[in-house]
Amino acid sequence: MERTVYVNGKYLPESQASVSVFDRGFLFADAVYEVTAVLDGKLIDQAGHLARLKRSATELGMVLPCSEQELIQIHHQLIEKNQLVEGGIYLQLTRGNEGDRDFSFSDGIKPTLVLFTQARNLIENDTAQQGIKVISVEDIRWRRRDIKTTCLLPACLAKHIAHQAGADDVWMLENGVVTEGGSSNAYIVDQLGRVITRPLSQDILHGITRASLLQMAQDLDITIIERPFTLQEAYAAQEAFISSATAFVWPVIAIDEHRIGGGQPGPVARKLREIYIEIARSRAI
Amino acid sequence: MERTVYVNGKYLPESQASVSVFDRGFLFADAVYEVTAVLDGKLIDQAGHLARLKRSATELGMVLPCSEQELIQIHHQLIEKNQLVEGGIYLQLTRGNEGDRDFSFSDGIKPTLVLFTQARNLIENDTAQQGIKVISVEDIRWRRRDIKTTCLLPACLAKHIAHQAGADDVWMLENGVVTEGGSSNAYIVDQLGRVITRPLSQDILHGITRASLLQMAQDLDITIIERPFTLQEAYAAQEAFISSATAFVWPVIAIDEHRIGGGQPGPVARKLREIYIEIARSRAI
Repeated sequence: MERTVYVNGKYLPESQASVSVFDRGFLFADAVYEVTAVLDGKLIDQAGHLARLKRSATELGMVLPCSEQELIQIHHQLIEKNQLVEGGIYLQLTRGNEGDRDFSFSDGIKPTLVLFTQARNLIENDTAQQGIKVISVEDIRWRRRDIKTTCLLPACLAKHIAHQAGADDVWMLENGVVTEGGSSNAYIVDQLGRVITRPLSQDILHGITRASLLQMAQDLDITIIERPFTLQEAYAAQEAFISSATAFVWPVIAIDEHRIGGGQPGPVARKLREIYIEIARSRAI
Repeated sequence: MERTVYVNGKYLPESQASVSVFDRGFLFADAVYEVTAVLDGKLIDQAGHLARLKRSATELGMVLPCSEQELIQIHHQLIEKNQLVEGGIYLQLTRGNEGDRDFSFSDGIKPTLVLFTQARNLIENDTAQQGIKVISVEDIRWRRRDIKTTCLLPACLAKHIAHQAGADDVWMLENGVVTEGGSSNAYIVDQLGRVITRPLSQDILHGITRASLLQMAQDLDITIIERPFTLQEAYAAQEAFISSATAFVWPVIAIDEHRIGGGQPGPVARKLREIYIEIARSRAI
């Protein structure tokens, strides 16, 4: 059976889910997006994702086409129509379509809203058990990485380079300092067991899972230091891991040719993953 | 009457010209494009645009879905079907659609090809007569500006800032040095009448019109110096101008609060525009 996809008020079979070639999302990557994890048929950290969607849209001078309550209803409708138990819901909001191609845009164009589900095992997940290998690449993206836009070609290319090198993902570097993963925030654990992660700025995405983890770590008496860390520090780390909306926490067991933590997932990453899933699940809507 | 648009082998009324929401061009800006000017119903500098399209695609590991001869035929078909005399043809090639969303991509996906016409006065053009006002903004784009991708949100935002400030476009700056215009190459003319423009690198688009102009300037005994120039130099320039596929050459009469050449289009820009149109027109196919 085909997936049901939401496009501008309509629920359509996926083979019919399309947008105009004049949509600014297609022509200019003039669009923002969110991915929300689904566990037990419920939305994880949804308030955070909606708040960030609103912020991304506002930064670009776009407005949401409906209320937050309606957005949540669309998510729930898609879960139901697709009988989604575990996976994610992708939401993309574009500036819309003015009927022709022009870099300039008017204020108040009707935005385009697309949502679809992706079924996937998030909890019983091999990658989460085994950990991932990353390679470092230069971060050549634009400078407003805090806005979650669909200008994602640089991230796609970086991940492709990783895959060709036999790795799972990248950690991106600017001036020798790690910015983030290909589509995740990056963390290391130092020899004293302290978690180090880059502070929020326009250089990195303001991860929703990251925010939740930082809160939970406090309650667990895990020290988190928000400061930039170098690739050299990462090589020497006791543990390394990433966080994202649908990975939650995945251990990093190798960075370039350096095995981290003896090439095994470490206890801090495992603990944070466990706690995150437990708490986020209990708060799911 | 509706425009006829080309989408993957089909000629469709524009209201039916659409792409799947799973197309990587829509989801990831995983796409390249070209715009070719049309004069007298013929294609301007087409060989250059096709060569650059091929280069952009190759840089991203994409392949063209058909021969160059077939691409030219599609251009000609669209000119005929839309009775286009003057304007441009937009071509977008995306990596295609693998049926779901994943940053990773396989090699050899069937690409998506879209082309449409845009009727516009290029020769009798008010902007070309009057010149444009630009403001300087920081260049925050990704670092592979030599690949003509649809990651164009930063350029759209920059132009929007210019319009809000009452200007027509931007000149972008990196470390105090001009990279290029919002969607054009940038030039100044110094007090000795020499044209100065930034040399080719990954920092700027390798303009097809730029390449032709450099060739023509040689024949006209206009000295062209390819070197980076600062914003301060631009403020003090005798003339300034931009080039692009559909503008050809447009004079720049103000940069920020500085009037250039007394706020009037200058003779070098006018001469280059004239000669470019004459020669390019004679070579059009």
